[in-house]
Amino acid sequence: MQIEIITIGGEILSGRTVDTNFAFLARALEAESVQVGWHSTVGDAADRIGEALGLALERADAVVITGGLGPTPDDLTRKAVATALGRPLQLDERVLEGIRERMRRLGRKLPASVETQALIPLGAEVWPNPLGTAPGLLIVHEGKPVILLPGVPYEMEALATGHAVPYLRKKSGRHVETFTLRTAGTFETLLQEKIGAAPQGWTGASLAYLPSYFGVDLRVTVSGNDPAQVRAVAGRAYDELRARVSPVIYAEGAKTMEEVVGETLLEMKYRIAVAESCTGGLVAKRITDTPGSSRYFERGFVTYSNAAKVGLLGVEPGAIEAHGAVSAAVAEQMAAGARRNAGVEVGVGVTGIAGPEGGTREKPVGTVLIAVSSPRGEAGRKYHFVGTRNTIRERAAQAALDLARRHLRGLPIEPKLE
Amino acid sequence: MQIEIITIGGEILSGRTVDTNFAFLARALEAESVQVGWHSTVGDAADRIGEALGLALERADAVVITGGLGPTPDDLTRKAVATALGRPLQLDERVLEGIRERMRRLGRKLPASVETQALIPLGAEVWPNPLGTAPGLLIVHEGKPVILLPGVPYEMEALATGHAVPYLRKKSGRHVETFTLRTAGTFETLLQEKIGAAPQGWTGASLAYLPSYFGVDLRVTVSGNDPAQVRAVAGRAYDELRARVSPVIYAEGAKTMEEVVGETLLEMKYRIAVAESCTGGLVAKRITDTPGSSRYFERGFVTYSNAAKVGLLGVEPGAIEAHGAVSAAVAEQMAAGARRNAGVEVGVGVTGIAGPEGGTREKPVGTVLIAVSSPRGEAGRKYHFVGTRNTIRERAAQAALDLARRHLRGLPIEPKLE
Repeated sequence: MQIEIITIGGEILSGRTVDTNFAFLARALEAESVQVGWHSTVGDAADRIGEALGLALERADAVVITGGLGPTPDDLTRKAVATALGRPLQLDERVLEGIRERMRRLGRKLPASVETQALIPLGAEVWPNPLGTAPGLLIVHEGKPVILLPGVPYEMEALATGHAVPYLRKKSGRHVETFTLRTAGTFETLLQEKIGAAPQGWTGASLAYLPSYFGVDLRVTVSGNDPAQVRAVAGRAYDELRARVSPVIYAEGAKTMEEVVGETLLEMKYRIAVAESCTGGLVAKRITDTPGSSRYFERGFVTYSNAAKVGLLGVEPGAIEAHGAVSAAVAEQMAAGARRNAGVEVGVGVTGIAGPEGGTREKPVGTVLIAVSSPRGEAGRKYHFVGTRNTIRERAAQAALDLARRHLRGLPIEPKLE
Repeated sequence: MQIEIITIGGEILSGRTVDTNFAFLARALEAESVQVGWHSTVGDAADRIGEALGLALERADAVVITGGLGPTPDDLTRKAVATALGRPLQLDERVLEGIRERMRRLGRKLPASVETQALIPLGAEVWPNPLGTAPGLLIVHEGKPVILLPGVPYEMEALATGHAVPYLRKKSGRHVETFTLRTAGTFETLLQEKIGAAPQGWTGASLAYLPSYFGVDLRVTVSGNDPAQVRAVAGRAYDELRARVSPVIYAEGAKTMEEVVGETLLEMKYRIAVAESCTGGLVAKRITDTPGSSRYFERGFVTYSNAAKVGLLGVEPGAIEAHGAVSAAVAEQMAAGARRNAGVEVGVGVTGIAGPEGGTREKPVGTVLIAVSSPRGEAGRKYHFVGTRNTIRERAAQAALDLARRHLRGLPIEPKLE
């Protein structure tokens, strides 16, 4: 079964809004082994919407349309679909009552235009929208499902997760298991080398390498008609993959590095302080992205100037003179100084050259030194990151969090895939 | 003239990669008044590429295809287009020499597969790729331009900016002027009220409101056949818009708030230090996003705990007890303490509740206090931001930078659109 997704909206077609709805839907469907074969985007014009739907019904086995279900005059999807499929719009009393009820609850006046959202093409099944007034709609037209979802991302996501994706998954008749292992501190090519041909032994499974500056995520999707066999293959794939690359795995699923560091600190009853130069506050920002991080994050120092490194962290001026501000000695003294000054168990220090200026032959742009200090002792490492100023800073922040995790967990500081 | 953009690539169709190439192209074309009528995406399959091109040539006046020009076996665009248009591939010696030259310069071995990128459909014009080996291609097929661009974003952007967009703009025969005014500290609805019907007097102009958590950008695009008239309208629109909303404009074009703050500091020969609680390092990170920011950014304090506020910034424990850590008094003492401790001219303090927990009836989630201290005196303001933890932190960081800018420039701290 192959799906076509149609996005409706002038703001998408103009490039002003990036179409994250499509990416969300496609990923959610792919994770359930429902294949997306085509994606098309047209503006808010009834004839264009009708043409796109006609074409999709010719070539695809099912169609999902997002956007244009709102109450304003440029929301034309309902009307265009009704016309294209020859299914006149009819007022659905239950939908109308739901809209009225919602407006009462929010204490808002009901503009007459909102009621147009209760006009439903003949024969459509209604999927109530828990977060807004435009319901999702399912029309099975000449045997092919046509699904209409609103364009507001969180409303679309709720209806996709709650209705559209499970419906299409069931329609495709396949059972699916999926898992993700997140790795940091290695390269896609090294992972590929290490994993080798293992996936060939996993019947019905696919392995995706998903690189970003946080590392490389490994996502396995297994699908098949026999649930027990799918589960068995997924279990084997999980074990084999872990056995091959466990030294670089830092999390599973959608968990972030800062969440893992936070959990580790809570578990050990440690608090942390960070001292940053080239990352300029990004490590502290990442740690405090997690709600409740005040339980373990005590303070951060953004010591951009040498005076700040010396004055706030007790870095020795002699160390800066002898080795430079971007050196292992200074990173170590920053980590120790952050820990001491904050009176906490764990200190992290980051110093480096984010560029684009400031590189030298010995210390090119991308050179970053990271150190950590704790009751477990001290650890440090030199990195060479490539990319733009932004990429280098992001990679350095991820590496700093990973180094703290490795040190606290007693793992090797330089992971080897052996 | 209406364009169709076709994106090629399984990684796009699976949702794993968000199609930022399309958004870039559509925005660049819209800014030149070239209208995008359709966008479609297909995977790495020659028949699907051919079908998509055929359909596009039926309905659009010109076609731009991105992706699938690389050297690997799943890069099929060149071949598929050659087949669909009946224009056999031919080896282009100059392109081949360019590829060889590039490989020599980078000191890399030339894999045989790279040479396939020198195979060009008959009659195509070659646009050299300054950043990679796959050139851009222009084929005028039965009077309609078909443009092929690589999928690597920076290569695509270079060829789009250097060749494809100017070509299509000229083809459309229209003259275009565009400008952007960036506003912060107000709402889209207030801007609309203030600007009113003014755009109706600007012949051939369109005004777009582009909201984000940095504020609302106002982009005006004027197009027409008479260059002098287009310039005159753009000039009038610029003057009228500025006259109406100047109190909330912080920059023009693509300039960021942190760049404006940096320029202001350099101009005044001031240096800055920031003290952050709820933003957790984001203000320092934003300031140091700008290359060369070490000339004016001295240090940052992420004082998450009360002990850090007291110990590092000299905030009085009595002030925290009497007013709470999230209070105007504490924000003021943080700003003054950052300035004093760093020995610089400008100090900024940010304290607030980013949520999702920690709100009270008097101080709900989203309450943020920001203060600034400098030789000009002191200033401060209370804000109520709505949204998620992430949104609130982003908005607070933008507001802190804007407050510093307003204070340093002697502008009103609470801008009024009147």
